[in-house]
Amino acid sequence: MSRVYLDHNATTPLRPEARDAMIAAMDVVGNPSSVHAEGRAAKALVERAREQVAAAFGAEGADVIFTSGATEAAALACAGRGLHGAAVEHDAVKAWIEPDLPVDAQGRVTVKSPGQSVLQKANSETGVIQDLPEGLEVSDMTQAFGKLPVAFNWSGCRMALSAAHKLGGPKGVGALIVKRGTDLEAQIRGGGQEMGRRSGTENVIGIAGFGAAAKAAVEDIATGTWDRIAEFRKILENIIAAGSNETIFVGKDSARLPNTSCFITPGWKGETQVMAMDLAGFAISAGSACSSGKVRSSVVLQAMGFSGADAGCAVRVSLGPETTRNDVTRFAESWLKHLNRHRARAA
Amino acid sequence: MSRVYLDHNATTPLRPEARDAMIAAMDVVGNPSSVHAEGRAAKALVERAREQVAAAFGAEGADVIFTSGATEAAALACAGRGLHGAAVEHDAVKAWIEPDLPVDAQGRVTVKSPGQSVLQKANSETGVIQDLPEGLEVSDMTQAFGKLPVAFNWSGCRMALSAAHKLGGPKGVGALIVKRGTDLEAQIRGGGQEMGRRSGTENVIGIAGFGAAAKAAVEDIATGTWDRIAEFRKILENIIAAGSNETIFVGKDSARLPNTSCFITPGWKGETQVMAMDLAGFAISAGSACSSGKVRSSVVLQAMGFSGADAGCAVRVSLGPETTRNDVTRFAESWLKHLNRHRARAA
Repeated sequence: MSRVYLDHNATTPLRPEARDAMIAAMDVVGNPSSVHAEGRAAKALVERAREQVAAAFGAEGADVIFTSGATEAAALACAGRGLHGAAVEHDAVKAWIEPDLPVDAQGRVTVKSPGQSVLQKANSETGVIQDLPEGLEVSDMTQAFGKLPVAFNWSGCRMALSAAHKLGGPKGVGALIVKRGTDLEAQIRGGGQEMGRRSGTENVIGIAGFGAAAKAAVEDIATGTWDRIAEFRKILENIIAAGSNETIFVGKDSARLPNTSCFITPGWKGETQVMAMDLAGFAISAGSACSSGKVRSSVVLQAMGFSGADAGCAVRVSLGPETTRNDVTRFAESWLKHLNRHRARAA
Repeated sequence: MSRVYLDHNATTPLRPEARDAMIAAMDVVGNPSSVHAEGRAAKALVERAREQVAAAFGAEGADVIFTSGATEAAALACAGRGLHGAAVEHDAVKAWIEPDLPVDAQGRVTVKSPGQSVLQKANSETGVIQDLPEGLEVSDMTQAFGKLPVAFNWSGCRMALSAAHKLGGPKGVGALIVKRGTDLEAQIRGGGQEMGRRSGTENVIGIAGFGAAAKAAVEDIATGTWDRIAEFRKILENIIAAGSNETIFVGKDSARLPNTSCFITPGWKGETQVMAMDLAGFAISAGSACSSGKVRSSVVLQAMGFSGADAGCAVRVSLGPETTRNDVTRFAESWLKHLNRHRARAA
């Protein structure tokens, strides 16, 4: 049987629209900074993608600064500014902030000074959605963009982070969206690309893929894809809850992304679950993808009040637009079978 | 008649090997940091490319840190370190150094303290090649890699910069090559990818293209491609010299990259030449590609002692592996025709 990929919050399969745009961009020879016809053609591709991303983000009139991903965008927005945030932020944001904002048991963050704070729109591990306060300085919209309507112009924030590969674009491309007129010191300097805010020859092929993916992702939202996915998530959680009443669904009383289910089964390590399910043909994760391949006990879950031991028994299942009802029921049934084996061994 | 692209130092057409590797990588779904099968497959692609780049660079046993390009690699190697360099370095390097090393009329740089200095292997505008002193801290090998054999392990330098798109790979990917054991503070922080030295989900498709391009580029060197290209450059310069004895070939008495010809025709603006040749079907440049689309008088040429007026009358013609003898003779003849028109107007 073919494998089932249920780790879309780590990264997504490339959308066909992105693939086509990237292959077309491979034939564009020039450097966007060159003045000749080849250069102008490359620049036109980048500018079209910039408009696609701005439109998809509800950020017409704002500046879209292309970066190598949300991690670089976080550094550009946050480094050296002493902003405040919560422990539930992604490591790429936490690298630059004071992680002192309170988090409640449902994962909701209280912001004290929006103008000096960062707040994610949705959490990668739990899917918990935050209300953004008016005047927020930076919002990490990486997980929200493509799964929820994100209207930057109405969000009340000054800057937002995003990554193409979370919505069907390629890995290694992202953007910082910035209200026009915002002062911003470049981190990567040189040729002065991206209006002097981010130097370096543009990733033309990747940027073309980002634009096409953003456009397609927003069309998906409009046609109700995620309502269907939310229904599948409900089916998943119902099957699991019916077979395992000790399992805790994290953030279930909060608004959550429609695709994300994070659940703790005390006594059964998340890492063990991931490996067992991988062998059974299902890709899921224990917390965030971690560069070292090691799995640490989730800081996000501990910030919500779970013990280290319980946090170490969490897994994240994250669905995508191509996920089917059958994928979800097969996964849930297989997971229960493995849970029963675990119980038998533990007994 | 089809256009002739003679601006390979700005960027190169994608090699078929890179294209194939990138299209194959589009089907690899996972995040290299994920532990499941999809993640491990993505990681394997990145690691294969890392080996390909290391082998092509003569850097087996050194660390290859993938970045979004040479500009980011320059920031990672140089930012905040007070290194010394010359005015002929690329802007991405000059952003971080004291530009106080002397340059002679042939473009050669004298390094005083190698351990505190940066020196490019070859200049993008003139093609002038530098001898690297033993113990050099950083060398920008962006233009040299793929056109000259660069044996990092024998170069005597601690770090080297490189970009995929200068040798037939995609734009938006590069690497910093670092002697193993070198201390290096990450500039972009978060998930801890690239051994903690450069965070952010890897540009898997682009990195796969870089690896394939590097391998193919080195095979090109071995099979004598650049000897043929050097011959074509000689033909180009001979035709131009025969028709225009006032034209100065910059750095002609230095060792130069085999593909690069930079020449000054006093009184005829480089910008005007680029536009005239663009309309005639040839892509060349006046100095480095500049992000704003404006053309400034070359700082590199002024550092070599040319006046601002003369520097403003330079163009750069840079050949690639696919350039033919016919491309070169057509260009040179068309250029002379336009020179004669310019003379007629000026008379």
